Amino acid sequence: MSRLPRKILIIIGPEFEDLEFFYPYYRLVEEGYQVEVAGPSNEPVQGKRGYRVKPDYEFSRVNPREYDGLVIPGGRGPERIRNNDYVRNIAKSFIEENKPVAAICHGPQILISAGVLRGRRVTSYWGIKDDVVNAGAEWVDEPVVVDNNLVTARVPDDMPPWMKKFIEILEST
Amino acid sequence: MSRLPRKILIIIGPEFEDLEFFYPYYRLVEEGYQVEVAGPSNEPVQGKRGYRVKPDYEFSRVNPREYDGLVIPGGRGPERIRNNDYVRNIAKSFIEENKPVAAICHGPQILISAGVLRGRRVTSYWGIKDDVVNAGAEWVDEPVVVDNNLVTARVPDDMPPWMKKFIEILEST
Repeated sequence: MSRLPRKILIIIGPEFEDLEFFYPYYRLVEEGYQVEVAGPSNEPVQGKRGYRVKPDYEFSRVNPREYDGLVIPGGRGPERIRNNDYVRNIAKSFIEENKPVAAICHGPQILISAGVLRGRRVTSYWGIKDDVVNAGAEWVDEPVVVDNNLVTARVPDDMPPWMKKFIEILEST
Repeated sequence: MSRLPRKILIIIGPEFEDLEFFYPYYRLVEEGYQVEVAGPSNEPVQGKRGYRVKPDYEFSRVNPREYDGLVIPGGRGPERIRNNDYVRNIAKSFIEENKPVAAICHGPQILISAGVLRGRRVTSYWGIKDDVVNAGAEWVDEPVVVDNNLVTARVPDDMPPWMKKFIEILEST
């Protein structure tokens, strides 16, 4: 029996944390997922360390219903795109439909702005802990925190257990 | 039944290609391997994009017999360390004992200098193709080339199938 490959969306903004984009990107490709990238426009987006990534779509063209999961890398990208209404609506759609969402580092800033963290158990980069708490979440200092289908992590070194959990959840949904 | 985690060695030199270190590093950690890094000294080694990695050992202290596999990232690192006798002997030891070896991009420069490519079927970054051929190998333009336990690839975008094959071979040895 064959089936279409499942699709994952990664959303990035300028000065994303390069490894936090590329590790999940390559990892999910390795696992057989079709991974697509959305950004502020069709122009290449540059990471903090200078890697450039050309988005497949701009945010306004994304239909979240086409995807089985969402990845939000950290760095300075999330702050740069969190005020974009399309970005908020994308994040809100995945959370409301209880699809798997993986966010790391400053990635949860987008979940704050989407208004979807109340009552959730999450982690993030330490520097935004207070913002996560003020958004109504319980903040936990662990390498990876799983709350239903939401999988959060703090820093690049947390990525191995973060992706392991995210893939387990994708496989089970 | 429990067993000790299997150990993988990654060897790096200055200006290694950052993603070609971090993808296999995190990927093998995710898979449960104990991953150790060797470099020219105990001082942090800086990648082309500025990420810094502190080696666990300097090359002269490495005992290849302790490891189950070897990874050689690319970038400018391999050229910077290929004349080091310890590096050549490490690579030679893995190849002679037929342990899994994964090399990417300019990584095969180390295999050239170790004198272990004659008669092997490999790929590499296009820019060193002629050197690989002059070292006696058959060069193939494919994302990943497997010859017995030697797994080679060309560029960062080849990493998903490269690591998939390397892990398959590790699991089967």
